[in-house]
Amino acid sequence: MKNIIVSVVMGSDSDLPVMAEGVKILEEFGVGFEVLIASAHRSPEATVKFAKGAEKRGIKVIVAGAGGAAHLPGVIAAMTSLPVIGIPIKSQALSGIDSLYSIVQMPSGVPVATVGINGAKNAAILAVEMLGISDIKLRKAVKVYKKKLRAGVAEKQKRLDRLGVEKYLKFLEEDKK
Amino acid sequence: MKNIIVSVVMGSDSDLPVMAEGVKILEEFGVGFEVLIASAHRSPEATVKFAKGAEKRGIKVIVAGAGGAAHLPGVIAAMTSLPVIGIPIKSQALSGIDSLYSIVQMPSGVPVATVGINGAKNAAILAVEMLGISDIKLRKAVKVYKKKLRAGVAEKQKRLDRLGVEKYLKFLEEDKK
Amino acid sequence: MKNIIVSVVMGSDSDLPVMAEGVKILEEFGVGFEVLIASAHRSPEATVKFAKGAEKRGIKVIVAGAGGAAHLPGVIAAMTSLPVIGIPIKSQALSGIDSLYSIVQMPSGVPVATVGINGAKNAAILAVEMLGISDIKLRKAVKVYKKKLRAGVAEKQKRLDRLGVEKYLKFLEEDKK
Amino acid sequence: MKNIIVSVVMGSDSDLPVMAEGVKILEEFGVGFEVLIASAHRSPEATVKFAKGAEKRGIKVIVAGAGGAAHLPGVIAAMTSLPVIGIPIKSQALSGIDSLYSIVQMPSGVPVATVGINGAKNAAILAVEMLGISDIKLRKAVKVYKKKLRAGVAEKQKRLDRLGVEKYLKFLEEDKK
Amino acid sequence: MKNIIVSVVMGSDSDLPVMAEGVKILEEFGVGFEVLIASAHRSPEATVKFAKGAEKRGIKVIVAGAGGAAHLPGVIAAMTSLPVIGIPIKSQALSGIDSLYSIVQMPSGVPVATVGINGAKNAAILAVEMLGISDIKLRKAVKVYKKKLRAGVAEKQKRLDRLGVEKYLKFLEEDKK
Amino acid sequence: MKNIIVSVVMGSDSDLPVMAEGVKILEEFGVGFEVLIASAHRSPEATVKFAKGAEKRGIKVIVAGAGGAAHLPGVIAAMTSLPVIGIPIKSQALSGIDSLYSIVQMPSGVPVATVGINGAKNAAILAVEMLGISDIKLRKAVKVYKKKLRAGVAEKQKRLDRLGVEKYLKFLEEDKK
Amino acid sequence: MKNIIVSVVMGSDSDLPVMAEGVKILEEFGVGFEVLIASAHRSPEATVKFAKGAEKRGIKVIVAGAGGAAHLPGVIAAMTSLPVIGIPIKSQALSGIDSLYSIVQMPSGVPVATVGINGAKNAAILAVEMLGISDIKLRKAVKVYKKKLRAGVAEKQKRLDRLGVEKYLKFLEEDKK
Amino acid sequence: MKNIIVSVVMGSDSDLPVMAEGVKILEEFGVGFEVLIASAHRSPEATVKFAKGAEKRGIKVIVAGAGGAAHLPGVIAAMTSLPVIGIPIKSQALSGIDSLYSIVQMPSGVPVATVGINGAKNAAILAVEMLGISDIKLRKAVKVYKKKLRAGVAEKQKRLDRLGVEKYLKFLEEDKK
Repeated sequence: MKNIIVSVVMGSDSDLPVMAEGVKILEEFGVGFEVLIASAHRSPEATVKFAKGAEKRGIKVIVAGAGGAAHLPGVIAAMTSLPVIGIPIKSQALSGIDSLYSIVQMPSGVPVATVGINGAKNAAILAVEMLGISDIKLRKAVKVYKKKLRAGVAEKQKRLDRLGVEKYLKFLEEDKK
Repeated sequence: MKNIIVSVVMGSDSDLPVMAEGVKILEEFGVGFEVLIASAHRSPEATVKFAKGAEKRGIKVIVAGAGGAAHLPGVIAAMTSLPVIGIPIKSQALSGIDSLYSIVQMPSGVPVATVGINGAKNAAILAVEMLGISDIKLRKAVKVYKKKLRAGVAEKQKRLDRLGVEKYLKFLEEDKK
Repeated sequence: MKNIIVSVVMGSDSDLPVMAEGVKILEEFGVGFEVLIASAHRSPEATVKFAKGAEKRGIKVIVAGAGGAAHLPGVIAAMTSLPVIGIPIKSQALSGIDSLYSIVQMPSGVPVATVGINGAKNAAILAVEMLGISDIKLRKAVKVYKKKLRAGVAEKQKRLDRLGVEKYLKFLEEDKK
Repeated sequence: MKNIIVSVVMGSDSDLPVMAEGVKILEEFGVGFEVLIASAHRSPEATVKFAKGAEKRGIKVIVAGAGGAAHLPGVIAAMTSLPVIGIPIKSQALSGIDSLYSIVQMPSGVPVATVGINGAKNAAILAVEMLGISDIKLRKAVKVYKKKLRAGVAEKQKRLDRLGVEKYLKFLEEDKK
Repeated sequence: MKNIIVSVVMGSDSDLPVMAEGVKILEEFGVGFEVLIASAHRSPEATVKFAKGAEKRGIKVIVAGAGGAAHLPGVIAAMTSLPVIGIPIKSQALSGIDSLYSIVQMPSGVPVATVGINGAKNAAILAVEMLGISDIKLRKAVKVYKKKLRAGVAEKQKRLDRLGVEKYLKFLEEDKK
Repeated sequence: MKNIIVSVVMGSDSDLPVMAEGVKILEEFGVGFEVLIASAHRSPEATVKFAKGAEKRGIKVIVAGAGGAAHLPGVIAAMTSLPVIGIPIKSQALSGIDSLYSIVQMPSGVPVATVGINGAKNAAILAVEMLGISDIKLRKAVKVYKKKLRAGVAEKQKRLDRLGVEKYLKFLEEDKK
Repeated sequence: MKNIIVSVVMGSDSDLPVMAEGVKILEEFGVGFEVLIASAHRSPEATVKFAKGAEKRGIKVIVAGAGGAAHLPGVIAAMTSLPVIGIPIKSQALSGIDSLYSIVQMPSGVPVATVGINGAKNAAILAVEMLGISDIKLRKAVKVYKKKLRAGVAEKQKRLDRLGVEKYLKFLEEDKK
Repeated sequence: MKNIIVSVVMGSDSDLPVMAEGVKILEEFGVGFEVLIASAHRSPEATVKFAKGAEKRGIKVIVAGAGGAAHLPGVIAAMTSLPVIGIPIKSQALSGIDSLYSIVQMPSGVPVATVGINGAKNAAILAVEMLGISDIKLRKAVKVYKKKLRAGVAEKQKRLDRLGVEKYLKFLEEDKK
């Protein structure tokens, strides 16, 4: 069984559909992780307890997603020495600009490594890159992953060369269904 | 000696020049208060301790100012049943829009009563209005205060009638010095 | 019969679906309230009359929601010494940023306690917290409410532990229907 | 003596330096006007009284400037059938975006004719254009004014042709002093 | 037959659904009008010709709607001495913020009377108010219109008192269908 | 067979539906072009290779579309002396404001000719205009194109005159289907 | 004597300090140019005349800067088949966001090649790149220019290696004086 | 001598005053680092070479600051498997909002760990936290650092208790000089 070294935390279970994309990446890279719901506002004690205890439990990176006032990543960062990655979840009225500002604009001394709005996938890749600093296997896996990205683009270019613009558009439409 | 019933909290002593305008209002209304520096990120334990203990210490309203990610009012609100008034402090890069969104866009269940950017004075008046719900003296004092606002406008109108636009502009310039 | 101590006012009946979430909270907490439609622009005299008379009628807190130029909470605050809570209603073109700025950026001397965009639920909780300053029963009720929030998060965590991410996602989808 | 047919109203005497540019235009066009300080929030009764009585006193257009929440033009518009021109005054934190949204985003039924941020000069020209609908003299005066604008540009072009870019830049610098 | 005294101009026929709300108001008030499609960019000569000739043809107020770069109202204002009312049409990507800024931020000397995003109805009312400066009948009609607004709010309040919140919500839902 | 002188590049095949509008314009004007998928981030080497080799392969103008961080146009511009036209693709959370800023705010020395959000059509017309500097045929074609725009507006005006507002609205609705 | 092939146009002589940076670049590249002041709003006829006549006078590229509503580039683009480069000038209240949106968000059919806020230098380089499509000398000059950019960075790196961070900071400070 | 394991890269030497705050932190923590100037746009080859070679040279974390279009961190991230931390530098016109969006909104697959605008200090702390994943000494150093933050707040509170608000304000003013 894999050691759990990444905590994936979210402020509300409504964030799960976004956060699940990050979870999938961690699985893909074979990184042991846990998934937690912990609200900075609705369950503050549990959040504090989690943040303070994470390092001792062997956690090495924390990935936290939240929307709106989105204090979760910052509140955790205040209580741990582990790197914390923050994911601004797209919000109803302000489309995640509120989440982004609340997460990225941390005061001096307490950083949160912020990714794009709804960027759970990138947060997970970033976590793997951080772990890759001392885990040569993971670093190689990132390289392989990035090669696949390249290959993916190349493949699309081939399809475009083969189909032309008109047919590619139809292909995209059918692909959606 | 007056009972301390309002806590004025700020995330950093650099917020003091703004927050002092609120302090002055509380003095004017004769409300007992304390002034605290408590950072949600740099001194989280002290902040938690403060938030949890405020009610028992007889505090009735908490006024909290913070800039940037500005988690302080929300973090306090998460740990108390007292009304929390949040003051978004004007920030360097984003002029307090970050502070405003971080404070006002709280999730369901944990409100922060937000005033305008750098609105420490209004925060204090709001605190007095809240206390005025059960303190008839304070409610009357608010009425007197609002009458003075009216009188102030009337007085300016008189000055304008007397001086005309040109001379009033000069008066304003000299008043600045 | 309960005394009516909270006024819930809205600028248009199209705000009712949002405001109704606040009404529900007030019912839950057993607070006596009235629901009014009063436009700062379309029915200004009625609004002025309401604002000036509220205190005498025994109202203790006013909760006012409005969208767009959203002058209602500020216009009421100008004519009463009671605390006024403002709810920026999400608007068509600007998603409520206009409503938020119009409500929160009040001038010195006349505060409006602003909550998040469409935050009627939080406005009502804030009203209860204000009333709780002098009503020990309500303050306790807020504590119970906040405990329930905690319990709700814990329950979701348990469900997540039991179901895992995949099945929880399906559960969420089914829950929507 | 000229009849007073335009009211120039501002929310605070701190708006006077901006509003004075509009006053100057009205003088230039020989339009009778009055200058008033009336705050929607600090002196609401006086504002209501002014708005309701303006038409009877022979006022034909109202020009109102305000900053921040900037309710003044909208509050006046709610209580008169005269056209109301709103000037969003540049505000400290939000540079007048708050003022602009608060003034321009009026609900259906109660328009405010909004000009640019700090656009007091344009507000006055607009007032003259409105009066020009039925005052042929004023309409001609607007035409003359616009011709002068044209002449002004032509003159600058000549200066530029004569001086070249380098020397024009020096001319601009000296002109500032 | 009524004299045509208001021109309703739009940059594209895709703006017609919005502009039609203004047209309806003009019909309601019995004001003679024409409806034109004239793009500042796609048909600049026709636009220039229209703007320059409007006054001679007896037009008294121009109402112009445009989206995106939205130069139409400003381009017209540059070529006429008539008051020009600008309607920022909601745009695809930027929700009309681009349209609003492009219309309202006119340079000194050439104002456009701007209404809210998609505010064609208010633009028409504003046009009527302008005409009302010298047309006592129209001014009275505006008063009657505003009284109806008041009555409309009062009627909704009555419905709310009769139905209560729950049933009013159902009424609103059914009303949509 | 036509020489390929314009490269149409996009960061992802999901941009194709937008970019295809530009492709159509190039076809209409009879300009030889190629269509490429090249991500500044996922296939950086291919992108560099493309940018460096374009001029030698006879390309004269590069049209590049990208969304979000949208580095593609800038990265290409850094590696070529050809004019690069950038199209900010509308993004999920920020509606293309991120794309726009990332593309237009290039540092001194390395310009990108930016068009509006999703403005692929305009990008292609701009490319043709650039080519028209030395290709008299294309310049004439642009003139013809612009005449058609004029004719299009005139035709709509005729339809509007014939149908009136009401029927035109119905026509628009049916046109959508 | 050089042929005049680039028009540098600005809406106001207050834009000259910004536009002069572009002028300098054109001189550096030995491109013949003219400098004009032409306001879309204050001197519309002159602007129309300029735009319509530019091509016949041998102009190949138009560079137009404007601030605020910033219609100048778009108005010119509407009346010419030449490529038009637009420079959003930084404005007082909105820092050039209004200028940027007004210039870049042009409707389908009439593009403006927009550069960054105050990007006159880049506008001129872009003009040279456009001319370089058919002028091999200019294209080479752009390459040389870009090499110098590279060399400039390399030189700074050397200085940094030599001085270290501390001394470089002092060097920068002294450089400002 | 310390091994160089962190690269501090900036797009322009004008970013050095901001970046130097991060350099100081790295020195404080005893982390070996190098400081580089590498522009994604002005020296793209050098940037590509740096990004591709960093890992082999033993670099473990890259800290990159850039302003405006701010492509540097993303361009580097595209060419390395190391974690890249991006610092949005405050820009002239848009205050760093452009820099922030350009850095944080990276596409799926290529994350940049973004900190706040001008957050070089936090970027360096984040780098240390990342290195702390496998370097127990550094992790402890972070803990000590965070304790000092706490102590700093506590000390300020003591000063405030001792001086009171009035005198503290004077102390702050004198401290600035």
